[in-house]
Amino acid sequence: MKIDKNKIIDLNKDIETKHLIQLDSIANQLQHKDIDGQDIIKKLKIFQVAIPSWALGAGGTRFGRFSFGGEPASLEQKIDDIGIINTLTNTAGAVSLHIPWDIPKDYNGIKEKAASYNIVFDAVNSNTFQDQPDANESYKFGSLSNINKAGREQAIQHNIEVINIGKKLGSKSITVWLADGANFPGQNNFQKALKNTQDSLQQIYQSLPNDWKMFIEYKPYEPNFYSTVIQDWGTALMLAESCGDRAYTLVDLGHHLPNTNIEQIVATLLYKGKLGGFHFNDSKYGDDDLTVGSIKPYTLFLIFNELVYGMENNPQNPDLAWMIDASHNAKDPLEDLIQSLEAILIAYAQALLVDQNKLREAQEAQDIVTCQEILQDAYRTDVRPLVRESRLQAYAAIDPLATYRALNVRKNLIKERGKKSTATGL
Amino acid sequence: MKIDKNKIIDLNKDIETKHLIQLDSIANQLQHKDIDGQDIIKKLKIFQVAIPSWALGAGGTRFGRFSFGGEPASLEQKIDDIGIINTLTNTAGAVSLHIPWDIPKDYNGIKEKAASYNIVFDAVNSNTFQDQPDANESYKFGSLSNINKAGREQAIQHNIEVINIGKKLGSKSITVWLADGANFPGQNNFQKALKNTQDSLQQIYQSLPNDWKMFIEYKPYEPNFYSTVIQDWGTALMLAESCGDRAYTLVDLGHHLPNTNIEQIVATLLYKGKLGGFHFNDSKYGDDDLTVGSIKPYTLFLIFNELVYGMENNPQNPDLAWMIDASHNAKDPLEDLIQSLEAILIAYAQALLVDQNKLREAQEAQDIVTCQEILQDAYRTDVRPLVRESRLQAYAAIDPLATYRALNVRKNLIKERGKKSTATGL
Amino acid sequence: MKIDKNKIIDLNKDIETKHLIQLDSIANQLQHKDIDGQDIIKKLKIFQVAIPSWALGAGGTRFGRFSFGGEPASLEQKIDDIGIINTLTNTAGAVSLHIPWDIPKDYNGIKEKAASYNIVFDAVNSNTFQDQPDANESYKFGSLSNINKAGREQAIQHNIEVINIGKKLGSKSITVWLADGANFPGQNNFQKALKNTQDSLQQIYQSLPNDWKMFIEYKPYEPNFYSTVIQDWGTALMLAESCGDRAYTLVDLGHHLPNTNIEQIVATLLYKGKLGGFHFNDSKYGDDDLTVGSIKPYTLFLIFNELVYGMENNPQNPDLAWMIDASHNAKDPLEDLIQSLEAILIAYAQALLVDQNKLREAQEAQDIVTCQEILQDAYRTDVRPLVRESRLQAYAAIDPLATYRALNVRKNLIKERGKKSTATGL
Amino acid sequence: MKIDKNKIIDLNKDIETKHLIQLDSIANQLQHKDIDGQDIIKKLKIFQVAIPSWALGAGGTRFGRFSFGGEPASLEQKIDDIGIINTLTNTAGAVSLHIPWDIPKDYNGIKEKAASYNIVFDAVNSNTFQDQPDANESYKFGSLSNINKAGREQAIQHNIEVINIGKKLGSKSITVWLADGANFPGQNNFQKALKNTQDSLQQIYQSLPNDWKMFIEYKPYEPNFYSTVIQDWGTALMLAESCGDRAYTLVDLGHHLPNTNIEQIVATLLYKGKLGGFHFNDSKYGDDDLTVGSIKPYTLFLIFNELVYGMENNPQNPDLAWMIDASHNAKDPLEDLIQSLEAILIAYAQALLVDQNKLREAQEAQDIVTCQEILQDAYRTDVRPLVRESRLQAYAAIDPLATYRALNVRKNLIKERGKKSTATGL
Repeated sequence: MKIDKNKIIDLNKDIETKHLIQLDSIANQLQHKDIDGQDIIKKLKIFQVAIPSWALGAGGTRFGRFSFGGEPASLEQKIDDIGIINTLTNTAGAVSLHIPWDIPKDYNGIKEKAASYNIVFDAVNSNTFQDQPDANESYKFGSLSNINKAGREQAIQHNIEVINIGKKLGSKSITVWLADGANFPGQNNFQKALKNTQDSLQQIYQSLPNDWKMFIEYKPYEPNFYSTVIQDWGTALMLAESCGDRAYTLVDLGHHLPNTNIEQIVATLLYKGKLGGFHFNDSKYGDDDLTVGSIKPYTLFLIFNELVYGMENNPQNPDLAWMIDASHNAKDPLEDLIQSLEAILIAYAQALLVDQNKLREAQEAQDIVTCQEILQDAYRTDVRPLVRESRLQAYAAIDPLATYRALNVRKNLIKERGKKSTATGL
Repeated sequence: MKIDKNKIIDLNKDIETKHLIQLDSIANQLQHKDIDGQDIIKKLKIFQVAIPSWALGAGGTRFGRFSFGGEPASLEQKIDDIGIINTLTNTAGAVSLHIPWDIPKDYNGIKEKAASYNIVFDAVNSNTFQDQPDANESYKFGSLSNINKAGREQAIQHNIEVINIGKKLGSKSITVWLADGANFPGQNNFQKALKNTQDSLQQIYQSLPNDWKMFIEYKPYEPNFYSTVIQDWGTALMLAESCGDRAYTLVDLGHHLPNTNIEQIVATLLYKGKLGGFHFNDSKYGDDDLTVGSIKPYTLFLIFNELVYGMENNPQNPDLAWMIDASHNAKDPLEDLIQSLEAILIAYAQALLVDQNKLREAQEAQDIVTCQEILQDAYRTDVRPLVRESRLQAYAAIDPLATYRALNVRKNLIKERGKKSTATGL
Repeated sequence: MKIDKNKIIDLNKDIETKHLIQLDSIANQLQHKDIDGQDIIKKLKIFQVAIPSWALGAGGTRFGRFSFGGEPASLEQKIDDIGIINTLTNTAGAVSLHIPWDIPKDYNGIKEKAASYNIVFDAVNSNTFQDQPDANESYKFGSLSNINKAGREQAIQHNIEVINIGKKLGSKSITVWLADGANFPGQNNFQKALKNTQDSLQQIYQSLPNDWKMFIEYKPYEPNFYSTVIQDWGTALMLAESCGDRAYTLVDLGHHLPNTNIEQIVATLLYKGKLGGFHFNDSKYGDDDLTVGSIKPYTLFLIFNELVYGMENNPQNPDLAWMIDASHNAKDPLEDLIQSLEAILIAYAQALLVDQNKLREAQEAQDIVTCQEILQDAYRTDVRPLVRESRLQAYAAIDPLATYRALNVRKNLIKERGKKSTATGL
Repeated sequence: MKIDKNKIIDLNKDIETKHLIQLDSIANQLQHKDIDGQDIIKKLKIFQVAIPSWALGAGGTRFGRFSFGGEPASLEQKIDDIGIINTLTNTAGAVSLHIPWDIPKDYNGIKEKAASYNIVFDAVNSNTFQDQPDANESYKFGSLSNINKAGREQAIQHNIEVINIGKKLGSKSITVWLADGANFPGQNNFQKALKNTQDSLQQIYQSLPNDWKMFIEYKPYEPNFYSTVIQDWGTALMLAESCGDRAYTLVDLGHHLPNTNIEQIVATLLYKGKLGGFHFNDSKYGDDDLTVGSIKPYTLFLIFNELVYGMENNPQNPDLAWMIDASHNAKDPLEDLIQSLEAILIAYAQALLVDQNKLREAQEAQDIVTCQEILQDAYRTDVRPLVRESRLQAYAAIDPLATYRALNVRKNLIKERGKKSTATGL
């Protein structure tokens, strides 16, 4: 199923008047503060977030999975789904593939299809947390950190293969997430596991093309429940530094212990020039992988505040690879992703409202009350008209969710693909 | 120092036009959704939050305290301070006294002073977590739960004395917070400590006037670091039920373990008709006692969503006693309280925007995406014009913080009271 | 595969001398403290823990599952596996069935097989967290709490069916664990979900035979990640009380928020006479379902300290239903269960060493240092000779793990069942 | 008060026989495992832990403090108290001073007194979390990270002064703990605060004598409740590396977020050769500063397991500076410290029992069950006879706590110093 742009334009017309009144109101408000609304809209319009190929079907937990009809059963259909989202939102112009789930059979065909939706190939992802049917070595007790050389070697080769697949598609980066760790004290020698991981990453790095980046992800627990080899940003940074200039850390919002101040981690990594990628989701307990902004929207704003600051003040840090990494256990995955993209743009717009000069002055005056007022003023502003306008200007939907429903997308997908199609992924 | 209402009215004039444009805009927006903005403003206007008498000076931690100039050194000055806040915000029309820190010397004088600011006397608070110089028994190892009858008896008598003081002032409730607990395994016999606490509370309840309520507070840790006698809402509810109809639980936002779903606790207690009081603050780690809404404003909104629902649907539950219970370690306490009151009204206004009928329909249709949209739509709305209007209509300040600063309140207080005055309290 | 008792007796002989020397040493030590070692051994010998039928195969996470060879593919084989553990340890004399995974085809055959291993049928467990292929209603959005009557009705009938199956096997209790909850704010009306759950449980309770008990389990999160309907012991207790005298709460060690003082919850429930069942496991982060005692053995001891106290002092509370509820993601499930049973007996034995009289005296004297010394003295004692002796006297293995390995049990199971058999369960 | 060694020797005699029987039993047990008990005893005998000068009086919380009689009112008396503990335990042969609380008036006198108790001067500690009466700049909004140069400069000079005081006493290291951070989002510019801290530490490092080490401590929260400048080990390591070879991180057990795997951090820092110091305490919730080993003794053992491994395998890491950093809110401080020292030696002895060769073999064989058995076997062994023997051989008390009480130490201290003396410190 492909969405006809003209239908979006038609549906936009019904709410355009109402939208423009609200836009006018916020624009005036911003003008009083010497903020140029159009400038913000421009930034929103070009902001692109990758959709992971594994998150277009229903997610699940260890307790089971509730299927959703019309799931994409092939890489082609996954690209189609992202095309739908991108056409509606203008923000989903990239896909992040997961190997071996998404090895293209027809590279040119896939590239053409993606191009037809204005979708580029972002970071490729390796999988060393599951055993493949034909594998010689098991990852049950680790991959890049495995105590056995053969296990490590297999995992290294897999990552190199992933790079090679990515090269054919135009990707420019690989994300390495390790499930490696231990379920019980004593299972791993921490120092050896760390050293093995470092050696393995360095070998993968040797195969990294010169215009590629490597992103090293960290996570404190799950699927291992006593320790993980790359438990926190400090470990990921240490490993990235040991590899070289093009190795970076990747922050996934759900990969932190309770109460962690994530925005400070973001700031520190930007300061070091070592923040490479960013995985959006939200959570209340652990790596819950919920819709972005659904639980802690203020934290999301505070993180974007650091990101905006860093994008303006940290030339030592490269452009970031943005991706949504959520799981859709109960919602229609496409609706869920639309809600996530909305939350991301809202937080970004709010952060763009922060008057960095006034904030600096208040910080220098040690006027905490005013510092808080500045952030809260930005956050409390209803920036949705700006977000909507950024879409309207790009011929995407003013209200993507309502449009998605008005166009009966899911119903059509089920008609095309059936009720029982299942997407590869978690 | 007493603020001249006319000065507020003057200062309001400067920003009234801008305010009215924004009010108009939001009113139109709400009208499209069949929401009567004036109705919400009316509810905001009558919403009153008590200020605790112990939170008008600088707070501190076990690592020390940084003084603030012009702190109130007497109960009279504390009432003056609350008067300032109430005059500016129209929301601080009550005081919650802490005994023995605030025993009035001149009851009539205090009552008259409070009345002059439209301040009533809300719940009185007992203190059995510190030893008084003249005390026979120490609370080092517990008060109402003490293994020794004499210790318990002293604590019971103190609570009865607090009730008697409250009666003279027009209070209608007492809040019992216990620091009782243990620092080490084995220190307490859990069952005996619980039973002693229950017996003690029942004895206090015997002395409770018929038109009074007793609020039982819970807290998982601090100042005891292994266990507390009333560790959670379940224990507080059990104790309240063992006392009688006029005993209720009290929820303090900071008194929960990491990741607790507080809004569900609020809903459960309302359902049982046993939610009596509410202490506002915010926190990232423990009982941090930060400015309301400064860390997790969405959670505050979700809690208000349950409160609004309960106020409309749970006649079995009494009117709630609202209080701010924050500590002001780094900010001017009065500015901090103004920021807290603003955050409370914003969250309340947002919750009032939730279309409960549509939400019920979406819930019945198991349309999670729409459920989320309804809550987020309310939350993302900039309700500040409604909040400002509720103050303007009450001849309070459109912008209380700016007015506070324009009137040089703190400077005047320092002039009156000196730089080194110290308020009793934590 | 069935273990020949004589082989165990033979293997015991090799280490009996060494064992008896150690037993003698600890017995002397205890005698100095007026503790009768034989009395403790007697208590250990009769202590029985149920093995859940779903935990005999490899567990997994949402990220995948690593198979284990020789898994039991039928209920008969599951009973065989528990038979192996019980023969080796003398502590696994019960099985807890999960319906619909374990509906017997031949009731008499199953009962005879179980009896041949001295295994009784403990609590039966219902499953309303997964949809069955032939189900009319989906539990995707809840079961006993479902907003739709038809969904609730199906879940109620399933529970009644589970009771009926249990009756045929000699079970005397049912455990109700609900996955019900919400992934997002707004998804559920908390009050309605609670009320529906209460009504449903009451209906199940109506079908409960007079000599049966119902256990209500609580859990704060997973598989729902915003809220669960029965989030904590307070809610479970409230529901149990609303059902009647034979409804109890069930504590699963992994079902608590970070830092919860579980031993105090245990004490409170015993005090109320409402603790019915107990699920053992261990965890560092969430419901990690690790081997009992592998992460926080001191907490396990402190919990047993409350259990021993309650068993002696709370006649209002019934005998407890003990069960291991762990997941075996990386270990041989049978070895894992043997390690869990060992940890349980050790903690129980240590708790039996606590001199309750001296502890009471120290508590009354508010001598915290001595209170701690008493608990630590018990905990630091090496009670393993007592545990081993309790097995030796029952003709089970002094060292069950070494015996299991010496007898090549897993190898034989793989030979019998193949490398790819898969157990039903999580 | 000074303890007469002969009295200890006398009291030892009463329990020596019983002790030797137990020692004999454990020695035999160890011999079976080819472990030389005497070798372990030797290591225990020379293990020394510094006592901080600020922890000899009653601690407190922000809710108050319950005094203890006979507290040391001068530095001399503090040294006397540590002398008591060292005489009883043979493990407290060092003191860690806190400036400005403990600036000696008579350097030679203090050094002689300490020497008379075999006490050396370990790391000195600076204090930039409280304002001194005569200070020009306030640390309310930060010290080494302060936005204002004058504030930073004052804090740098203070640290240099602390080094100079330490030089006169024979200290060889300084510990820098910063309370710097923010209570509210926006208060600090994270990047600037980090950069300022780095610059300040580098300046202090310039003044570090060549044979000194600098320890940089981290802590996630308290007394600041939104962020701290050095929030975790990753930040501390980054700062240490930016200073130079003699700058190290310091791990305080209580300074971690919930569920942190501390033993892995220890292993990582040892691997990097950057673990300098170690502060012992225990906690359930936050930085509770409870008696070492009173809450999570198994974690303490696991940490010691890494420390023992590192001391044997990481020549790149220097000898560690050990210190107890606990607060004594409810116990006699000296008794509390004796209990802490006992817990430390027990964990150390257990860790020394771990058969590192067998553990490595099991790890290489990916035999998780055996890995766990090896650690648990060591942990479950009752090593107290070894600990007692290490004291007996040093003419210290077999049972220091009983001896402390038998000698009426506290009573004598109260007689000497009065009931109301107060120690400087928290």
